[in-house]
Amino acid sequence: MQSATCSILTASMSVVAVLISAGAVLGKANPFQLICMAMVETTAFCASRWTNVYILEIEEHVSLMHVHIFGTFFGLMVSWWLTQPSLRRETGKEDSDVTSDLFSMLGTLFLWMFWPSFNSVLVDGVVEKRNAIHNTYYAIAVSAVIAFALSALTNKNGKLQMTHIHGATLAGGVALGFSAHIIQSPWIAMVLGFLAGVMAVLGPYFVKMCLNSAVKMYDTCGIHCMFGMPGLLGAIAYVILFVIYNWNNLPARGYPALIEVGSLSITILVAVIAGFITGILLKLNICKAPPVSKYFDDQVYWEFPHLAVGF
Amino acid sequence: MQSATCSILTASMSVVAVLISAGAVLGKANPFQLICMAMVETTAFCASRWTNVYILEIEEHVSLMHVHIFGTFFGLMVSWWLTQPSLRRETGKEDSDVTSDLFSMLGTLFLWMFWPSFNSVLVDGVVEKRNAIHNTYYAIAVSAVIAFALSALTNKNGKLQMTHIHGATLAGGVALGFSAHIIQSPWIAMVLGFLAGVMAVLGPYFVKMCLNSAVKMYDTCGIHCMFGMPGLLGAIAYVILFVIYNWNNLPARGYPALIEVGSLSITILVAVIAGFITGILLKLNICKAPPVSKYFDDQVYWEFPHLAVGF
Amino acid sequence: MQSATCSILTASMSVVAVLISAGAVLGKANPFQLICMAMVETTAFCASRWTNVYILEIEEHVSLMHVHIFGTFFGLMVSWWLTQPSLRRETGKEDSDVTSDLFSMLGTLFLWMFWPSFNSVLVDGVVEKRNAIHNTYYAIAVSAVIAFALSALTNKNGKLQMTHIHGATLAGGVALGFSAHIIQSPWIAMVLGFLAGVMAVLGPYFVKMCLNSAVKMYDTCGIHCMFGMPGLLGAIAYVILFVIYNWNNLPARGYPALIEVGSLSITILVAVIAGFITGILLKLNICKAPPVSKYFDDQVYWEFPHLAVGF
Repeated sequence: MQSATCSILTASMSVVAVLISAGAVLGKANPFQLICMAMVETTAFCASRWTNVYILEIEEHVSLMHVHIFGTFFGLMVSWWLTQPSLRRETGKEDSDVTSDLFSMLGTLFLWMFWPSFNSVLVDGVVEKRNAIHNTYYAIAVSAVIAFALSALTNKNGKLQMTHIHGATLAGGVALGFSAHIIQSPWIAMVLGFLAGVMAVLGPYFVKMCLNSAVKMYDTCGIHCMFGMPGLLGAIAYVILFVIYNWNNLPARGYPALIEVGSLSITILVAVIAGFITGILLKLNICKAPPVSKYFDDQVYWEFPHLAVGF
Repeated sequence: MQSATCSILTASMSVVAVLISAGAVLGKANPFQLICMAMVETTAFCASRWTNVYILEIEEHVSLMHVHIFGTFFGLMVSWWLTQPSLRRETGKEDSDVTSDLFSMLGTLFLWMFWPSFNSVLVDGVVEKRNAIHNTYYAIAVSAVIAFALSALTNKNGKLQMTHIHGATLAGGVALGFSAHIIQSPWIAMVLGFLAGVMAVLGPYFVKMCLNSAVKMYDTCGIHCMFGMPGLLGAIAYVILFVIYNWNNLPARGYPALIEVGSLSITILVAVIAGFITGILLKLNICKAPPVSKYFDDQVYWEFPHLAVGF
Repeated sequence: MQSATCSILTASMSVVAVLISAGAVLGKANPFQLICMAMVETTAFCASRWTNVYILEIEEHVSLMHVHIFGTFFGLMVSWWLTQPSLRRETGKEDSDVTSDLFSMLGTLFLWMFWPSFNSVLVDGVVEKRNAIHNTYYAIAVSAVIAFALSALTNKNGKLQMTHIHGATLAGGVALGFSAHIIQSPWIAMVLGFLAGVMAVLGPYFVKMCLNSAVKMYDTCGIHCMFGMPGLLGAIAYVILFVIYNWNNLPARGYPALIEVGSLSITILVAVIAGFITGILLKLNICKAPPVSKYFDDQVYWEFPHLAVGF
């Protein structure tokens, strides 16, 4: 692939970390804080990726798939600083309505369509690329079915919930990121998609509870269960599959598997530390952080012509 | 083409039958009934397609284009069972509003854009594939123009109606499905697109009348005129074009033309019988079919956070 | 490239002139007037393009990039005829609401995604095509950033305005149209994208003022600053870059640079004259132009089922 195209692709995929982190702090930060966060985060992710690629000698493609995990842990740390004890979920500003749900569904649909490209675009080799596309497709198909099934099962009236559908349909694609190109049988991709879908629907019940009350962290879009946990699942599955596929020459290949675990730890470490520091920076007076009463309120940042009529 | 890719494509295209049938029963069935219908329908369509491909030796591509006709007749039979005599169109729940019309328009736009791919993806040969893309494009361009023109002409105030636009712009693509790759002159594709557009706009006035009152069948999205009739038109046009293009060696090639007619009949027969049986199954008490008063009401199946405020 | 594909592409790209002009007269013309305008405009643009390609021997690709400039000047002339002295902006019919802004944002997003294709599809040569894609991408990325920054800076409360975002994110793509395939360094593309973004945001403050009050011209969607001025900037930049890249053999290559200037003048001349004549035609009684009180009101042309309830 030509180098400029490759640079543009790497840049576009690195920015996904910012998108994910923004999901955690959405409604709790002003545009200036978001810009600061974006700048620190892309720098930190590039530093982490540089360490992984040039020192630990991880594949380019695999190093970019750490983006989900990095974005989640960075975003959660920043969100932890921005969450105020007085923040309650009573205001109703955060609730979705039919139109916003439909627009989110449209976004979900596009991500669903383009996820096979995301997981395969940096993979070298025609066969590996095709495998990556097919396996991602199998995984997201399974997690879409699981999303609908579990959403109805976990609701006491058997109703479907849009937030489950939005998150769980994509979790399969996240989980397949690392290993899509090396999986040889569709059933492995499907099992990973199944597990990721289950995590994305059931996760919030177990984890969000403690994040919101015990740890006092508030994750607006539920990125922890949608990107973080499926991403970790994918990273662990990649190491396991790597060991299984290289079982016969394991003494020689055991070392690379440890390297993968090490690079994952470095990514998480850098994300947590960088997120912690960024959170402190965003709390400084210079940022003019919005007061808690203005959380989840975007009329401060956008000009609405139809509201100005009569003024 | 690699076999796994081909399988995924065939699967994705077979599922279109379920989408079309769902259009006929929309608002009259609960999610469980829809899942049952999807399972029976895909099985029946695969059986019908297997007969066409392996016994009658129809081309793979042509056998998949029966999907529009199969979906329509299956859906109409199921809808016939689910239509209750007490169902009237007074409730207003079925009416569209501006936002839902715009979202439908967006869906129409995507189908319009992707229809040339749908009609050409399984066609072998570079020249045939290019012909299929170009001819489909000509046909949907003509039917989009006809949709706007006839919609204004048939309204007593000369106003445009969104339902006409949604249906008729796509009818041309349906009609071209069978013969897009063998048509040699753009004008043939354009005439087919014109006829399909006319059918999709004028059809409801003549057919829906008798479907809704005489036959007591209620076709929610008007799939009969949008997919069924243009599909039949396309199948007939395919046989006629096949005969014309093989006029010189007709004694030898007359037999395949009859086979095409036979495969079309088998598809319709299987669709009607399978739809009839599925309709009976869906009426069983086990399905807990929604009462007529809950038709066109999806608050039973979806959790709406913004409605829950204050509860 | 195969000739039929090339014809379809040329046709699709020529029609962009009508889309741009429609932006200037939107809400002030009825569907019949719009159809008349579309027919005259495509004919005039083809005539202008024919002159450029066959007499002045301009490249096919460059001649099509005049479409932005042609569409703007044609549309402004037609709009000048349709603007009534009694038209004021008090009615509120023209104001956007949240849903319409989101739909426009969706449209902007698609144009953004497809702009590199638009600027590169007719370029010959693999390297030139890749350059065109990359340079367009750099330019629209820069103009998207500039759009947000300048929108906040020019508002007295530092709020973002949707109209700026819609227009300025695309201006970079327009400015790159002519020269995307010959630019050798990303910074040139970025500077052009920057200038185009600045024009699209700041332009309305200086130009719309005089267009609306002094010249009594009313440009509904602000096409002058979104397509006209960035298009002119791109045309001028193309001539300058052409001269710089051919500096060493300038005596021989100076002549083509003058030809480019000439072809630009012909395009503007044809657009203004054809627009002037079309404006007169549309004011004839035969068109039944809507009265000023019905401007920006589309209930006259569309059937709204939900409004008919109770009638």
